[in-house]
Amino acid sequence: MPEQTCSAAVLTNYQEPLELREFPVPDKIGAEEALVRVQMAGICGTDVHLWLGQLPIPLPVILGHETVGYIERLGPDLKKDWRGKPLTVGDRITWASSITCGECYYCRLKRQPTRCLYRKAYGISYCADEAPHLRGGYAQYILLRKGSAIFRLPDELLTEAVVGGGCALITAIHGLERAPVQFGDTVLIQGTGPVGLAALALARHSGAEKIIAIGAPDHRLQLAREFGADGVISIEHTLGPGERRRQVLDLTGGYGADLVVECVGYPSAVPEGLELCRDGGTYLVLGQYADAGDVAMNPHTITRKQLNVVGSWAFEPRHVHQALIFLNNTHWKELFAREVSHRFSLQQASEALETVRQHRSAKAVIVP
Amino acid sequence: MPEQTCSAAVLTNYQEPLELREFPVPDKIGAEEALVRVQMAGICGTDVHLWLGQLPIPLPVILGHETVGYIERLGPDLKKDWRGKPLTVGDRITWASSITCGECYYCRLKRQPTRCLYRKAYGISYCADEAPHLRGGYAQYILLRKGSAIFRLPDELLTEAVVGGGCALITAIHGLERAPVQFGDTVLIQGTGPVGLAALALARHSGAEKIIAIGAPDHRLQLAREFGADGVISIEHTLGPGERRRQVLDLTGGYGADLVVECVGYPSAVPEGLELCRDGGTYLVLGQYADAGDVAMNPHTITRKQLNVVGSWAFEPRHVHQALIFLNNTHWKELFAREVSHRFSLQQASEALETVRQHRSAKAVIVP
Amino acid sequence: MPEQTCSAAVLTNYQEPLELREFPVPDKIGAEEALVRVQMAGICGTDVHLWLGQLPIPLPVILGHETVGYIERLGPDLKKDWRGKPLTVGDRITWASSITCGECYYCRLKRQPTRCLYRKAYGISYCADEAPHLRGGYAQYILLRKGSAIFRLPDELLTEAVVGGGCALITAIHGLERAPVQFGDTVLIQGTGPVGLAALALARHSGAEKIIAIGAPDHRLQLAREFGADGVISIEHTLGPGERRRQVLDLTGGYGADLVVECVGYPSAVPEGLELCRDGGTYLVLGQYADAGDVAMNPHTITRKQLNVVGSWAFEPRHVHQALIFLNNTHWKELFAREVSHRFSLQQASEALETVRQHRSAKAVIVP
Amino acid sequence: MPEQTCSAAVLTNYQEPLELREFPVPDKIGAEEALVRVQMAGICGTDVHLWLGQLPIPLPVILGHETVGYIERLGPDLKKDWRGKPLTVGDRITWASSITCGECYYCRLKRQPTRCLYRKAYGISYCADEAPHLRGGYAQYILLRKGSAIFRLPDELLTEAVVGGGCALITAIHGLERAPVQFGDTVLIQGTGPVGLAALALARHSGAEKIIAIGAPDHRLQLAREFGADGVISIEHTLGPGERRRQVLDLTGGYGADLVVECVGYPSAVPEGLELCRDGGTYLVLGQYADAGDVAMNPHTITRKQLNVVGSWAFEPRHVHQALIFLNNTHWKELFAREVSHRFSLQQASEALETVRQHRSAKAVIVP
Repeated sequence: MPEQTCSAAVLTNYQEPLELREFPVPDKIGAEEALVRVQMAGICGTDVHLWLGQLPIPLPVILGHETVGYIERLGPDLKKDWRGKPLTVGDRITWASSITCGECYYCRLKRQPTRCLYRKAYGISYCADEAPHLRGGYAQYILLRKGSAIFRLPDELLTEAVVGGGCALITAIHGLERAPVQFGDTVLIQGTGPVGLAALALARHSGAEKIIAIGAPDHRLQLAREFGADGVISIEHTLGPGERRRQVLDLTGGYGADLVVECVGYPSAVPEGLELCRDGGTYLVLGQYADAGDVAMNPHTITRKQLNVVGSWAFEPRHVHQALIFLNNTHWKELFAREVSHRFSLQQASEALETVRQHRSAKAVIVP
Repeated sequence: MPEQTCSAAVLTNYQEPLELREFPVPDKIGAEEALVRVQMAGICGTDVHLWLGQLPIPLPVILGHETVGYIERLGPDLKKDWRGKPLTVGDRITWASSITCGECYYCRLKRQPTRCLYRKAYGISYCADEAPHLRGGYAQYILLRKGSAIFRLPDELLTEAVVGGGCALITAIHGLERAPVQFGDTVLIQGTGPVGLAALALARHSGAEKIIAIGAPDHRLQLAREFGADGVISIEHTLGPGERRRQVLDLTGGYGADLVVECVGYPSAVPEGLELCRDGGTYLVLGQYADAGDVAMNPHTITRKQLNVVGSWAFEPRHVHQALIFLNNTHWKELFAREVSHRFSLQQASEALETVRQHRSAKAVIVP
Repeated sequence: MPEQTCSAAVLTNYQEPLELREFPVPDKIGAEEALVRVQMAGICGTDVHLWLGQLPIPLPVILGHETVGYIERLGPDLKKDWRGKPLTVGDRITWASSITCGECYYCRLKRQPTRCLYRKAYGISYCADEAPHLRGGYAQYILLRKGSAIFRLPDELLTEAVVGGGCALITAIHGLERAPVQFGDTVLIQGTGPVGLAALALARHSGAEKIIAIGAPDHRLQLAREFGADGVISIEHTLGPGERRRQVLDLTGGYGADLVVECVGYPSAVPEGLELCRDGGTYLVLGQYADAGDVAMNPHTITRKQLNVVGSWAFEPRHVHQALIFLNNTHWKELFAREVSHRFSLQQASEALETVRQHRSAKAVIVP
Repeated sequence: MPEQTCSAAVLTNYQEPLELREFPVPDKIGAEEALVRVQMAGICGTDVHLWLGQLPIPLPVILGHETVGYIERLGPDLKKDWRGKPLTVGDRITWASSITCGECYYCRLKRQPTRCLYRKAYGISYCADEAPHLRGGYAQYILLRKGSAIFRLPDELLTEAVVGGGCALITAIHGLERAPVQFGDTVLIQGTGPVGLAALALARHSGAEKIIAIGAPDHRLQLAREFGADGVISIEHTLGPGERRRQVLDLTGGYGADLVVECVGYPSAVPEGLELCRDGGTYLVLGQYADAGDVAMNPHTITRKQLNVVGSWAFEPRHVHQALIFLNNTHWKELFAREVSHRFSLQQASEALETVRQHRSAKAVIVP
């Protein structure tokens, strides 16, 4: 009997179209592995960075780290999901994109598992040339390793909501755990991409008094309003940091925001954002995932304004749990599901990346 | 009867010698004021910045914001010091260098009194041309305003220890309150000037497991060892940030320090220091008091390393109290008193500033 | 010209009807004082404790510490409210019920102003026999001392919302500042009186995932649902702590709540509530304002369950500010205004207290 | 060849002498197991509770949960200790007494591994009738399970120091992580047993300004002074809580201590201790390991004094690491090693327990 195969969209050369390749679908899987038929894979902004070669990865790679699928085969020892719920073939699931070693200096001594020295992420860290190949979401099938944090999805939670929230929502949950909204806070969100909208939703949900979003283009500012922004400032319709600063000061009694959340990714957003915090406020650097080089900054600002500047990297499985709990809420579930604006086939994966690169979509997904 | 006068060293033009001027000694003082005969005034690194014109102040100014003196006259309503201890003429006292309004947005709503919108500091914010003139420590007399946080000094505490600790010690107490040493921490101190040595003493006293100091010149590195550094790295004998980073990684198992305290003041120390923190560690930006302009920094470092970067500005009266409590400790009292290495008369004030500027002293003081 | 007088309801003997007395309305007032014509005074549960003699106060006392009124006369030096807004005769205001000394061990060194050694509260700490007499809200006029934290009310905020929130809302804001709701928390509120409802509103507003309220009678449980409780448990319709505990465990996956807020005031609520926390959870003891004596508790519970048990006493002026900000929100403003269910004249003050004592009202107020 | 056997002291009936039994020494061990020849086993106060039947355990049990030994056989897959250091036969090691599941609600979602639902402790949770029997320290050999957190001991660290610190030191490290000493704190330690002395050492090391210890008998108060107490109060030489409270207030300016650490274990210590905290202070309930029943407490104290009451249960492997780091310090290493005052053979295990029960020893150990 011939071996079954499946398709996957593979990044083989930076900045070139993804290649559609065939890989064997494993017939026999390990004791704690799961073979998953992909239902929907989100296109994350990080995928664009990877595509453009801005983060080092072991090419070729099957991209895709925010995925929902159905269990096709289940290793004999994999009986429960990360929350202890029973798993069976056919269950609709999602999973944490990374696996940590649980044993290194960062996992054990410093309790910083997101900085695990041996962390590997689906859709990013696995070379597609190496068996079992299927380690990314832009594919018909993905094979989950032992140790993956799997979450069975409740029936009432649409796949669109889970992928619409995507890793942006989970990343923002971790970030705001490290720099929490406090009662009565004025919050400023820099950036209206998926991370920015997720941070906005979380700040609104956590009782922020006033939320201002800075971003572009206009269709995303409109989304920001729908997600609960009290005021929006357009990057396109302001002349520069000075004008934006004046607008923010006008909206904050002249002081700046209590909490500023950077969800932009361009280095220049950081010096701009530090000036948008009130003295003694908090600046969360949440969007600088790619190494885009240096920017001129004045460290005197941090001392004089007595700031707390907080970095946050990726997330842990418990943040996926929190995201699913948050999405239980009818209001947010619908907003995130509606964020899915563009659907592509596996063959159109490059087009999907290009759409995201040009900020044309709210959220683009691949339906293999 | 002729009016009594006294001498003060006045900064009249940036980068020029201080001028010795005569001012009237007030005969009658306000209900909650105190006239103080200066016993000793410390030369702070900030005084050098002021002298060089790196911070805007209302010239002419009598410098001096870390001072000990004797009460000469006491306003009728000033009966107790900040801690509630009775005050009488002849008492030896020190005082918090700043007065805050207690009513503004930062004082009231945000509890950030060091960022008070109307804060004024002795030796910095008062124009010597305006009566009552005597608002700085480089003088025979200083007149303390209503609302000054005065501390009567215990007999067993040498003036040299109080001025030796100076505002550096109090500033470091506030900084380490905002970024506390945690049990078992490896602490790296950037800078071996007065703030660096004070931070070192506090880290040692608070149970840091290992302390490394980076600084220069050699006589200050020797002091750092006396203050408890387990290892020192010389700026003068290393080739640059790369070599220093390798040495720090060697001393920290390859990870960097849990807590890095910047006590340098040059902007370039900040990007260097961020790289000396372990992932998930804390970076305290304590030394950037003067606005020395921009430096190239990579904000990706903050996100990727998941850092906490903390600024801290000046101090509150309760930190002066804590400093005096800390100096009660025989061990530290003696080390700080011994730090006073150079004594100058009022006439030699410019020479004193020059000595500090060239890092020739451990601690220089004026004895008027 | 005859001196003007006004009426006030005075507590002269514990557990006896309040007495209506006439007091002179001061014609001339101090430089930073304000004479206020009372518009509405809330009846707080603490007033019932005071009436019953469960807290020591200097009888006779004009009760009333949650009050809104109009400025009738303004001392010449009182130009701005606590937030810096200009004050003029005719302004509608409220004020923090207490004044602290700002100078004692707790105010200065330990930053615990609610534990100020010299704190005095309107409606509680002032003997009505001593001039100027008018220091409580159950009166036609009240004279505010120098140092009162006055808040001019925005026009769009109904007096009913401010008094409906009352000191319960402000107390709950302070309590939840000390024991904050964290993202995704299950919160249990013990008690559905004004403090319980306020804590419930704040937990809902702060993003609690699930909220359960335990209380009685049924009309208050209905209110709890309107304030956002996901589930309610009746004290009247359950057989005791054991049955309530089973119900709470059923609603929390068998673990108990992340945060339990005690808003009951009976000592027996505390040992019951400790058992309703999950291990590692937080228990906020917010309702034990009167000293109602001992209760049998097992301290092993605190060690074994690794709990955080947090007390919170009264509030600071900044919490009044936060309450007013919170009440800006249309949804909460209307709910708290609707809580005002019973209105009484000054003559009916004793009847008002009796109504509150019997839990017959949602919120009772005096309209002098 | 006959099977090798070894001796162990087994608790078979509460309050009766331990029984010396022979058990087979396993010849072949599992892939990640370690067979350890016991060098020294500490007698913990909890062992006395277990012996007296105050905590439910599955009799018969080989007691002993603070142990040092030499690796005799090593499973083929066990190559490194918990800190990543290579392990070989002959290495001297200690280990965390508990193993957690890493998967339950408390391990995963709430990050409270000490409250793991499936936690098992050597010397406590394993029935000696079940193979492989050797799961406690009062024995010639102990077999460590897969998943044990093993620590290879540095040569310069005496076994006496490790066992002298014992689980008391590690428990105190966890407790003071949850309720940290802050700069300038006055700390009161209730209890001068091993946990009290360890808490005292840690408070001293962490920069406490003043430390007072309450305890008995006199030889332990003398030890408390050697461990750094500034003042001691004898339970035996004071008339009761009232007199002790007066002494504590005298030593703390009339306010009470900033941090009170309960290391007693009797319920009555808790209401006494709450009254020894200053308002707004912290009370760490560290000693209530056995369920010794209820005590009368007044919860009004917690609200009125605005306290933080913190429970802490057991410890995690990282606290063992921190204890070993702390013991690196020459000063503390020697003090803890000197605490070992009584040595017993396996045959004398009951006598050892009796010695500890009567507080006759500083630290008693078994040398099998």
